[in-house]
Amino acid sequence: MIREAIFHLPYDGGCFPIAEDRVTVRLRAARGDLARCEVVYGDRFCHPPVDQVQEMVKIGHDQLFDYYQAELSGHRLRYAFVLHDHRETLWYTAAGLTTERPQEVNLHFHYQHVHRRDIFTAPDWLADAIFYEIFPERFANGDPRNDPPGTVPWSTHSRPAPFGFYGGDLQGIIERLPYLEELGVNALWLTPIFTSPSNHKYDTVDYFSVDPHFGDLATLQELIRRCHDRGIRVVLDGVFNHTATSFAPWQDVVAHGASSRYASWFKVESFPIRTDPKSYETFAFTPLMPKLNCDNPEVRQLIMEVARYWLHTADVDGWRLDVAEGCDHDLWRDFRRTVKAIKPDAIILGEIWQEAQRWLRGDQWDSVMNYQLYHAIVDFFATGAIGAETFRARLTRLQTAYPDPVQNGLVNVIGSHDTPRIREYTRGDTRRSGLAAIFLFTYRGVPMIYYGDEVGMMGSHDPDCRRPMPWNEEEWDHPTLTLYRRLIALRRQHAVFRRGDVRVIWSDAASNGLGFLRWYQDEVAIVVFNNSRAPRRISLSGRDLPFPVGELRDVLGQRSVDQDGASIRIELEPFSAAILLGNRDGG
Amino acid sequence: MIREAIFHLPYDGGCFPIAEDRVTVRLRAARGDLARCEVVYGDRFCHPPVDQVQEMVKIGHDQLFDYYQAELSGHRLRYAFVLHDHRETLWYTAAGLTTERPQEVNLHFHYQHVHRRDIFTAPDWLADAIFYEIFPERFANGDPRNDPPGTVPWSTHSRPAPFGFYGGDLQGIIERLPYLEELGVNALWLTPIFTSPSNHKYDTVDYFSVDPHFGDLATLQELIRRCHDRGIRVVLDGVFNHTATSFAPWQDVVAHGASSRYASWFKVESFPIRTDPKSYETFAFTPLMPKLNCDNPEVRQLIMEVARYWLHTADVDGWRLDVAEGCDHDLWRDFRRTVKAIKPDAIILGEIWQEAQRWLRGDQWDSVMNYQLYHAIVDFFATGAIGAETFRARLTRLQTAYPDPVQNGLVNVIGSHDTPRIREYTRGDTRRSGLAAIFLFTYRGVPMIYYGDEVGMMGSHDPDCRRPMPWNEEEWDHPTLTLYRRLIALRRQHAVFRRGDVRVIWSDAASNGLGFLRWYQDEVAIVVFNNSRAPRRISLSGRDLPFPVGELRDVLGQRSVDQDGASIRIELEPFSAAILLGNRDGG
Repeated sequence: MIREAIFHLPYDGGCFPIAEDRVTVRLRAARGDLARCEVVYGDRFCHPPVDQVQEMVKIGHDQLFDYYQAELSGHRLRYAFVLHDHRETLWYTAAGLTTERPQEVNLHFHYQHVHRRDIFTAPDWLADAIFYEIFPERFANGDPRNDPPGTVPWSTHSRPAPFGFYGGDLQGIIERLPYLEELGVNALWLTPIFTSPSNHKYDTVDYFSVDPHFGDLATLQELIRRCHDRGIRVVLDGVFNHTATSFAPWQDVVAHGASSRYASWFKVESFPIRTDPKSYETFAFTPLMPKLNCDNPEVRQLIMEVARYWLHTADVDGWRLDVAEGCDHDLWRDFRRTVKAIKPDAIILGEIWQEAQRWLRGDQWDSVMNYQLYHAIVDFFATGAIGAETFRARLTRLQTAYPDPVQNGLVNVIGSHDTPRIREYTRGDTRRSGLAAIFLFTYRGVPMIYYGDEVGMMGSHDPDCRRPMPWNEEEWDHPTLTLYRRLIALRRQHAVFRRGDVRVIWSDAASNGLGFLRWYQDEVAIVVFNNSRAPRRISLSGRDLPFPVGELRDVLGQRSVDQDGASIRIELEPFSAAILLGNRDGG
Repeated sequence: MIREAIFHLPYDGGCFPIAEDRVTVRLRAARGDLARCEVVYGDRFCHPPVDQVQEMVKIGHDQLFDYYQAELSGHRLRYAFVLHDHRETLWYTAAGLTTERPQEVNLHFHYQHVHRRDIFTAPDWLADAIFYEIFPERFANGDPRNDPPGTVPWSTHSRPAPFGFYGGDLQGIIERLPYLEELGVNALWLTPIFTSPSNHKYDTVDYFSVDPHFGDLATLQELIRRCHDRGIRVVLDGVFNHTATSFAPWQDVVAHGASSRYASWFKVESFPIRTDPKSYETFAFTPLMPKLNCDNPEVRQLIMEVARYWLHTADVDGWRLDVAEGCDHDLWRDFRRTVKAIKPDAIILGEIWQEAQRWLRGDQWDSVMNYQLYHAIVDFFATGAIGAETFRARLTRLQTAYPDPVQNGLVNVIGSHDTPRIREYTRGDTRRSGLAAIFLFTYRGVPMIYYGDEVGMMGSHDPDCRRPMPWNEEEWDHPTLTLYRRLIALRRQHAVFRRGDVRVIWSDAASNGLGFLRWYQDEVAIVVFNNSRAPRRISLSGRDLPFPVGELRDVLGQRSVDQDGASIRIELEPFSAAILLGNRDGG
């Protein structure tokens, strides 16, 4: 046995409660190394021990490792792994790898006690959400009277200037709600809408007012009311890491230096305030965004007030948190208590670009923007920087990084206002951006569309990715829009995509192909990708599937599926995918 | 390179801030596999990246792995490991092992932002504490008037009955404070003292009164005042997992079943209450201890009130939490806020018998009873169940399980009211129990003495380990007491034992020997054990040490130390140890 490969983390993605009497455990071993493995477990207070034995199931692999999982019954558990290869059997506990069972029960792994409050739970609607990200200055101009001075004509072909304006506003969103409803999305994330000098408004001047170029409180209230009437939820963007330089407390610090009553609201290295070189901490390195000192009690209070105010005043459905690592964990716990006390099903969605275990333990956020998956999708489908085996490895890493209850609520994107657009990465190739979209809507997690991706918008790095939305339908890529509408409808119709488990069942380096299975209750979906330039005959054997499936139909391309007993064959054109739906055999 | 062995956890024991601009990272690789490794890191917002390179230091090994560590400067870090063996160089990031540096900075590991509140911090005095655990019913009888009916004569030779009483009380502790002061301890943990029918009082009837057999509020206040006058802190035991059956709310549930207003205070499976088979959840399986439902808001409020009451009323210095897994994490966070708001330097010490990462992230407890180390010490020194290499592996596992700021505050024991006594495990061999004590007082973490171990008390499993403390000095093992006094004095005199870093520098399977280095500022201690039946000449070479040390003296045995340049030789009798003190060379 390759002993160095054996690994178990007895918390987070390695061991987590899924119900008050159910705990999932995961184990890693070297790829292809184990003949089988099982968990020997029981109530931790039973002396002598009374054992249950649960066979572990292989849930994935990457180039180096196999990953196993099992569900255990009970709420106060001790457990040990028993690993078998063809030559030996080893016990794996906190005492390491041993040939004998450790007699001391305290050296076994434990999940000491399951508590309801320790089970990760996000609002139920999150898993059903299909999000649409709107950058309000560029989505639609509904009220030209509030256009900022110097507003330039609305044109998809113009390249946005860093500080330019096109006149988009909340009234524009209201007017385009029929478009969004027809598209099928049921949740909006608006990038910041509070008063701010910039077009992106990530530099807040007043956290308690709607930017006058976007409308006013009444416009926001009307927008949200109309959204709610249509079953569309609205999440706002909270920028608590930093402010604008025109934020009054910062202006006071600039004017009065160390004697300002706001001096400790920011992270000032030395007074008086200088900008070159800057004498204060900022977002990244921009002097225009002084960093708030989130350790300051008044700043913490301000953040809670902002959270409360918009929940109360506009009935918003949650907060997306910008540069969310800029505040400490204690603040986010307080934020959660504050938000949930007012609206228990409001969501909290943090922006972290790496794995976010520290924030996803149930005490802070409901979800994170899943940029680690984003990079994997772009690298595999859009740029081709990685092949199928590496893509599979990245998926597997994310699959085992978080507890299962987290997974269906992770917010997946294939582009945002902070990235080049997906179609820019494919250099206009809508086959490849289409594959990314098919993956987005069928894989586990909540899909979020960046406005305009559905009509094939192009755009490179910020600010180019923030071009005005084309409303002249002649500028749309209609096949892309058709694809998005079908994918959205499919996801809304089939809980298997929203609630199902997932397993990568096939990958193929030669053809750069990948396939995954999803299942929920009796429903089954198999999604297979030919991510290569050549036509490809995909062949899945029954051994690739954890259980038998009944007759499958291709709901995307209406291709015929050649099913013969357990084996499934389907022809895929270059850079194409099939979405096969069916039921578990006998289901 | 043995790729399967490479591992990094980007949080908890793998990556943690130690100051607002310092972050420690750890890496695991196969034993002896790497020629060297380094961390390439920088500010995560620098584009293009500006790199710093930090060589990693090997801090330990076990049978399978080497463990490396490095300290990084900065407060918003991206980092990648660069691993070299004699044939290849690999990058290790969230993208896995790659031959090239991942260009996408988001795929490197990140510690996104250091915040003051996210740095684990325990009250400063904890690291300096030398704890003494008192089981009040058995420590000293200061007031025979409050002896329970049926109290039996105070005799160390009697075997305690499960439900018997000897008459120990708080007045007894007050009278023995000179003994404790002379011994040198500076912190007491009293097992429960609130009203309860049992001798151990782990089944509370009234959380707000001192058990009348132990004294009253005035006695407790006097005890704590006298302790504080002597610089001794007092920690009480909070039993919030369960109560006594005579706890009034439980009696109400027994009487009124589902209609009791306390019905949801407990975890009742069915009404009416039955005890055989029991129809309610309990501690372990004992019907005498119904489990509190810590999810109930009134129960949560009760727990906070208890915490507050004794801090306010008796000025206690902290809480030890019994069966601490019985309440959820959210409750412990609330408990921390409650306690620290009243007395910021009160400590919170949880009882968890396994690794306790989930509770030691700075948001819940200051420390845990380090029973994982306990088992390692007993297995190595007392019973000989494991050899030096396995002991080293267990130490290394614990060393890398927690962030460094946690380590100096972990409460280490070699016995408690819940275990057989250390000398019972050695079958009376005070050489071996002495080695365990030497380890306890010189290794990293806070030593806690179980009352009477210092005079060589014997006692098997509970209740035998709870015999009355002998106050007839003729019953004492005086060499053991002398050893304890010297070890306590050494620890109090030398910050290196209380504040120092630690590294295991030597182990030897043949002689079952182990040695570790501790260092703090200029001070250095080397502790070496001959844990075998034969005399042993220990020989350390300069290569075993991370830096040169000056002249060493043996402060325990006054043996001569044969130092020749970098090499150190010392003769050790069977089952003996040397504690060598000195300074870093030139220090």
